[in-house]
Amino acid sequence: MKQFCFAKDQIIPAAEASIHPMDIGLIRGYGIFDFFRTSNYAPLFLSDYLDRFIRSAEKTHLTLNYSKEELKQIILELIEKNNLSDGGIRMLLSGGVSENHFSPTDGSLFIFNEDLDFPPKEKYEAGIKLLPIEHVRYIADIKTTNYAFPVWHSKIWKQEGAEDVLYHMNGYISESSRSNIFIIKNGEIATPDKHILHGITRKRVLELAKNVAIRPISYEELLQADEAFITSTTKKILPVTKVGEKAIGIGKVGPETQKLMSAFAKMEQKSSQT
Amino acid sequence: MKQFCFAKDQIIPAAEASIHPMDIGLIRGYGIFDFFRTSNYAPLFLSDYLDRFIRSAEKTHLTLNYSKEELKQIILELIEKNNLSDGGIRMLLSGGVSENHFSPTDGSLFIFNEDLDFPPKEKYEAGIKLLPIEHVRYIADIKTTNYAFPVWHSKIWKQEGAEDVLYHMNGYISESSRSNIFIIKNGEIATPDKHILHGITRKRVLELAKNVAIRPISYEELLQADEAFITSTTKKILPVTKVGEKAIGIGKVGPETQKLMSAFAKMEQKSSQT
Repeated sequence: MKQFCFAKDQIIPAAEASIHPMDIGLIRGYGIFDFFRTSNYAPLFLSDYLDRFIRSAEKTHLTLNYSKEELKQIILELIEKNNLSDGGIRMLLSGGVSENHFSPTDGSLFIFNEDLDFPPKEKYEAGIKLLPIEHVRYIADIKTTNYAFPVWHSKIWKQEGAEDVLYHMNGYISESSRSNIFIIKNGEIATPDKHILHGITRKRVLELAKNVAIRPISYEELLQADEAFITSTTKKILPVTKVGEKAIGIGKVGPETQKLMSAFAKMEQKSSQT
Repeated sequence: MKQFCFAKDQIIPAAEASIHPMDIGLIRGYGIFDFFRTSNYAPLFLSDYLDRFIRSAEKTHLTLNYSKEELKQIILELIEKNNLSDGGIRMLLSGGVSENHFSPTDGSLFIFNEDLDFPPKEKYEAGIKLLPIEHVRYIADIKTTNYAFPVWHSKIWKQEGAEDVLYHMNGYISESSRSNIFIIKNGEIATPDKHILHGITRKRVLELAKNVAIRPISYEELLQADEAFITSTTKKILPVTKVGEKAIGIGKVGPETQKLMSAFAKMEQKSSQT
């Protein structure tokens, strides 16, 4: 956590930020957030993230008292105050202190700056393992703070040597706990269409790879794929070489994934310079 | 919210309670709680609620720094300071401020006293409507703060004139968003066995009714039942006379439900006097 944050209408020392514990953000787990990065002091793909945050607020019936432009100005001011060259920015809007302790009301807005650790280089070189689990997120397209299940489950996937989980339900895959998933088979790149968060890195891959098929993908199809990878803000494009005990393709990072990883790195660099 | 609360090891004015917004209780919706009532200054069925709270902490890998007896003493002190004759007591344990903003760590414990509104008398006399929805709670037997889905959905069930939702999945019912459900058919009382919170009021009904069948109950079976009711701390035993647009039985509060309502009232009275 960097020194300063934005909390309830002003920039203050981050350690002094506080919220009342009766806020339904805490007692009902009802809130939204978003998370993006800076590269060389520039927030990457900021417009997309702000659009999504504003959309999440609308969809959860929470009032956001700042326009997109105002949020941008606060974020830029915070980056400068924290000297945040390369780090993470977390926006959070709580459900508010509600009279009946259940219905959403006017919540509190926070913006924090954070240090950021990417997965180690070896994981990009060898690929990672996902642990499959029968689960589907509800209202998955809204970036809520509802991560109780994967936080609870993380103890298990770590024991299994997995980097994260892979959600599947009724034979179809959707996403990982904080990432989208793509598969490649005979040159076709595909990604699930339903029960997913519309990730910004996912969006970038759709732009880079052009003909990605956005459609239902069965769990069996994933296991038979030549390559697979997950995408997220903090993982960028991370190759998946194992799902449970099954190797994906030959169990190594594939050429198409590598191409996309390079293309994404260039795209990011470009975004940080504009 | 009553004047005093217990917050992070001391009794303080409730308005001054605070938690850091980077606690995963807020940014990941990871925390546990419990809620019970006082009647004539006595916390009802306190031992059961404390057992459950302690069990929830264990199951979520959260450290509770107080024993059952210590929690009891704090609660009794708080009731006295707040002069809480008939009200609600909410215990909350957050996941803590975690280094990786995901894994549970040492959280904060809060205990609040609240005013309490029961459903109006008419609802006990006419019964209520539940809106069925395909959903199942994960780790339903742990009393987590994970209510993002029903909070979000409550706008819809209120529009439909329902008191709450009824979760069902693959043709089987489980529970309402904050209540257990029972059905009665040809004199047999039954309640679902899986994907439920083990409610304390549910437990009381199992004691009162003796031969309750605890087993899978199909959605169809519910629709064909003679009577149905939900149980919870704040609703006690509340008759269900409609599910969606279908009347349960003859659409009126049935005799078996009425008997249980009376028996439960007596049981509560007894508990508050011991």
